[in-house]
Amino acid sequence: MRHEQRLSELLPRLLVVEFGGAAGTLATIADHGFEVAFQVQAGLAEGLGLSQPEIAWHTERDRIAEIGAFFALLTGTCAKFALDVKLLMQTEVGEVYEPYAPYRGSSSTMPQKGNPISSVYITAMASTVKQLSAALFEALVGDHERSTGLWEIEWIVLPQISTLTHATLVHTFSLLKGLEVHPSAMKKNMGLTEGGIVSEAVMMGLGKRIGRQVAHDLVHDICRNMADASSVSFVDLLLANAEVKRSGISKEELDRLCEPANYIGLSKEMVAAVLDM
Amino acid sequence: MRHEQRLSELLPRLLVVEFGGAAGTLATIADHGFEVAFQVQAGLAEGLGLSQPEIAWHTERDRIAEIGAFFALLTGTCAKFALDVKLLMQTEVGEVYEPYAPYRGSSSTMPQKGNPISSVYITAMASTVKQLSAALFEALVGDHERSTGLWEIEWIVLPQISTLTHATLVHTFSLLKGLEVHPSAMKKNMGLTEGGIVSEAVMMGLGKRIGRQVAHDLVHDICRNMADASSVSFVDLLLANAEVKRSGISKEELDRLCEPANYIGLSKEMVAAVLDM
Amino acid sequence: MRHEQRLSELLPRLLVVEFGGAAGTLATIADHGFEVAFQVQAGLAEGLGLSQPEIAWHTERDRIAEIGAFFALLTGTCAKFALDVKLLMQTEVGEVYEPYAPYRGSSSTMPQKGNPISSVYITAMASTVKQLSAALFEALVGDHERSTGLWEIEWIVLPQISTLTHATLVHTFSLLKGLEVHPSAMKKNMGLTEGGIVSEAVMMGLGKRIGRQVAHDLVHDICRNMADASSVSFVDLLLANAEVKRSGISKEELDRLCEPANYIGLSKEMVAAVLDM
Amino acid sequence: MRHEQRLSELLPRLLVVEFGGAAGTLATIADHGFEVAFQVQAGLAEGLGLSQPEIAWHTERDRIAEIGAFFALLTGTCAKFALDVKLLMQTEVGEVYEPYAPYRGSSSTMPQKGNPISSVYITAMASTVKQLSAALFEALVGDHERSTGLWEIEWIVLPQISTLTHATLVHTFSLLKGLEVHPSAMKKNMGLTEGGIVSEAVMMGLGKRIGRQVAHDLVHDICRNMADASSVSFVDLLLANAEVKRSGISKEELDRLCEPANYIGLSKEMVAAVLDM
Repeated sequence: MRHEQRLSELLPRLLVVEFGGAAGTLATIADHGFEVAFQVQAGLAEGLGLSQPEIAWHTERDRIAEIGAFFALLTGTCAKFALDVKLLMQTEVGEVYEPYAPYRGSSSTMPQKGNPISSVYITAMASTVKQLSAALFEALVGDHERSTGLWEIEWIVLPQISTLTHATLVHTFSLLKGLEVHPSAMKKNMGLTEGGIVSEAVMMGLGKRIGRQVAHDLVHDICRNMADASSVSFVDLLLANAEVKRSGISKEELDRLCEPANYIGLSKEMVAAVLDM
Repeated sequence: MRHEQRLSELLPRLLVVEFGGAAGTLATIADHGFEVAFQVQAGLAEGLGLSQPEIAWHTERDRIAEIGAFFALLTGTCAKFALDVKLLMQTEVGEVYEPYAPYRGSSSTMPQKGNPISSVYITAMASTVKQLSAALFEALVGDHERSTGLWEIEWIVLPQISTLTHATLVHTFSLLKGLEVHPSAMKKNMGLTEGGIVSEAVMMGLGKRIGRQVAHDLVHDICRNMADASSVSFVDLLLANAEVKRSGISKEELDRLCEPANYIGLSKEMVAAVLDM
Repeated sequence: MRHEQRLSELLPRLLVVEFGGAAGTLATIADHGFEVAFQVQAGLAEGLGLSQPEIAWHTERDRIAEIGAFFALLTGTCAKFALDVKLLMQTEVGEVYEPYAPYRGSSSTMPQKGNPISSVYITAMASTVKQLSAALFEALVGDHERSTGLWEIEWIVLPQISTLTHATLVHTFSLLKGLEVHPSAMKKNMGLTEGGIVSEAVMMGLGKRIGRQVAHDLVHDICRNMADASSVSFVDLLLANAEVKRSGISKEELDRLCEPANYIGLSKEMVAAVLDM
Repeated sequence: MRHEQRLSELLPRLLVVEFGGAAGTLATIADHGFEVAFQVQAGLAEGLGLSQPEIAWHTERDRIAEIGAFFALLTGTCAKFALDVKLLMQTEVGEVYEPYAPYRGSSSTMPQKGNPISSVYITAMASTVKQLSAALFEALVGDHERSTGLWEIEWIVLPQISTLTHATLVHTFSLLKGLEVHPSAMKKNMGLTEGGIVSEAVMMGLGKRIGRQVAHDLVHDICRNMADASSVSFVDLLLANAEVKRSGISKEELDRLCEPANYIGLSKEMVAAVLDM
């Protein structure tokens, strides 16, 4: 949504005709006067579906650098999403998968693999777009009224940055549409720490009774010790602790606090609010 | 003007509170319900002079990357101006000078020098800002709902990119305010080619009589030969040419066409139109 | 090892005195002749522990840009290592941990967390160094014999790129020294796919009997189906397949092929060979 | 010369075979033992004219990032040279020109122009190479033993960075071979300040008599005043100064000091020494 807003704001700055003659002064048709020259420019702009500029801008390239920066922002958001998909596709995690297409993402030597092909290219392309955008920032710094060497950066970079951004969007769209989600794996992973993952909830619950900082350090120590005593559950470790006992908190209350499903906060409402926008 | 417009558009996206708890779900106060949590957030936002976000954004850093890109655009425009000042301050050009301050820009060993100190730092800072902006593009690509290592790029980069942009603006403002302009040097430089610089005007004038492409090649050759025959003026070379003679163009007309002051096109009107905006 | 080699090669190019006067011509002491001037320079170089250059290099900054690029390579290697540590520290993986120090990497609100603090900063610093190195590439392109604005990039960038590289090395060294390794988690993760992870071995073993491409596609399909039939083991799925049966491969052979510990190749020998260098 | 040295040092690191199987362990041929596997790799390397690596390096990409950085250094040096040519080709300077080829660098509308085509493309390509090199630094930071998304940056960037570097060298070579040098313009430009350009020599000469700092400030003031009194020569201004008079320096001595040809220092000897290397 923010990217759509950005695009709608920058397009009027970008889609502007440049018709000023060699030095931007319209010297070759100036004899006819400002009004006529302005009308010629207006006609050209209309024919091309562009607006008229405030003044000649052939050596003020902020319009072009701005679209490059927008491409870097846009592909960066796609790459953030693709990175998450790659992380969630790890064998040890397995919560989400790229859409399956026969043999797509398969490896010639490792038959078990389903490589995150789209995510891989999305991140690689976004990394390249980011650097090409910085090259367009340099193209801003042109000399005089006819830039020598800075302008030409655009000729090298613009076709590529546009193509890479387009490909990033295509891959991201197909990834989004066909994403395989495995809620059971999510639930299993949430349970790995047997409540440790929501120790914040435990800390807040205990904190009301024994003070938040005391609760923090106590829960931190118990979490730290879990690694060494993995056969005992988090709740049992809590219950075995002298201070927890003194606090009077019940096993039922601790069970409730240690259930991740009870600690998702307002995520549902927040997501619903965004979808309503 | 375009930068002011950009800033006014991006500020509402940038100046947004982030208050979502560790995972962005407001889990620690969710018991009170969405309405209350939303009001707490609204109160915090108001106290800080910020807006409320659509949803938690602690791992969606496009807002920060966008201000970095804006800084790169803004300092790039300053650097374009400063580059022109440096070029115009060359001893061989001498059309414009940085404001004089006693001993500022002087050299310890070369007493004649008046270095373009402000311009030099403006361009150096803009070059650095450009690269730091690309680092902020990378910070976009954070993992999951609690980025590890990408977010921290901002902690290194944001203070520096902000400081460098501020310093660039301060230097540019003082440069603009005190710029020394030497119109006589401009006039002298415009006359260096004895009309060659406005050979486009000559070509257009001749083109009406003998066709534009013929006129272009003819004028191109004469310009090229000027270097070898520098004692003869451009107009005399033109008049000595058989095709020019045949065209019937007069010496008076050629003199008029070769005067740069007659070929500034609509620059005055264009500048006035911008200043009126 | 390669970085040590690079450093030893570039240091003689970097550690070179610059003593040439304002224009690099030693004009102020030239009256004494080349021999004397050369000896003065030699004495200065010796006093500073530097070498003498081929010629004045105050506007040829490849020496400085080269050390910047080396810093980017070096911190990049550190970041690759740190990225792996972050991935291995994920709760779902748990194979490796940053050295524990009381409360280091702990979170104020989430008591269970042990954040990969060093890895996080190593990657953030390497990302910044990479961009600052590109700024030093730009500083190469200085004008004439006294660069205006490109040189000054170094004054902004060099202190920071050096400091960030130093800090990256310090963090990487402490990370390496205290790394906690959990072999049991590694073994557990290797077993997650019940042999699927070494399906290449199965394919190679089957391939000898039924052809590699046939074996690849067959194993690929079976791996793909495992997700839907997770109660049946990989070996049982293989044994149930008609083509596998026809190939005459035994259950014992398949069990052997599906054991990751039997498919580590020459890793031991390779690591030993490097440690011997 | 330094770039040749760098290339000869890095080539042995770059031209190295990668033959390690999917995980770099040579697991598919490990049954034959380390010696045999090593020999197979050696045979492949020999056939390809490459060396053998210390260990599998398919996820340690410093070799590739290093050649990218070298390309950035190399094209940066070309761009420094091309920038100087562009500056020297300015109409107001006119000391050096790109080699002339009919209609090359001519403008469709401005017949007098001889654009610095090669220099323009050299600088534009070097600017792009610089950013692409930073993308290759990012490709270093691959995950685990099979990078997902970082490696692929190379597939996008390497062909382009190589092509741009090649084109930069071709243009630079042709530029160097055909460069037109105008010594008379150089001499004329050296005389523009009537000795001001070598005011360092005057300061040093006067400094022996009245102290260097006094001489610096005095000469600095006189240089500064020249702009306002351009009809009086530098030497006359010096002679009219009370302190200069008191110093006893003669007009002949001042004339000698103000001649740029007398203040080229050891440039001839320095250039000769480099050409002898």
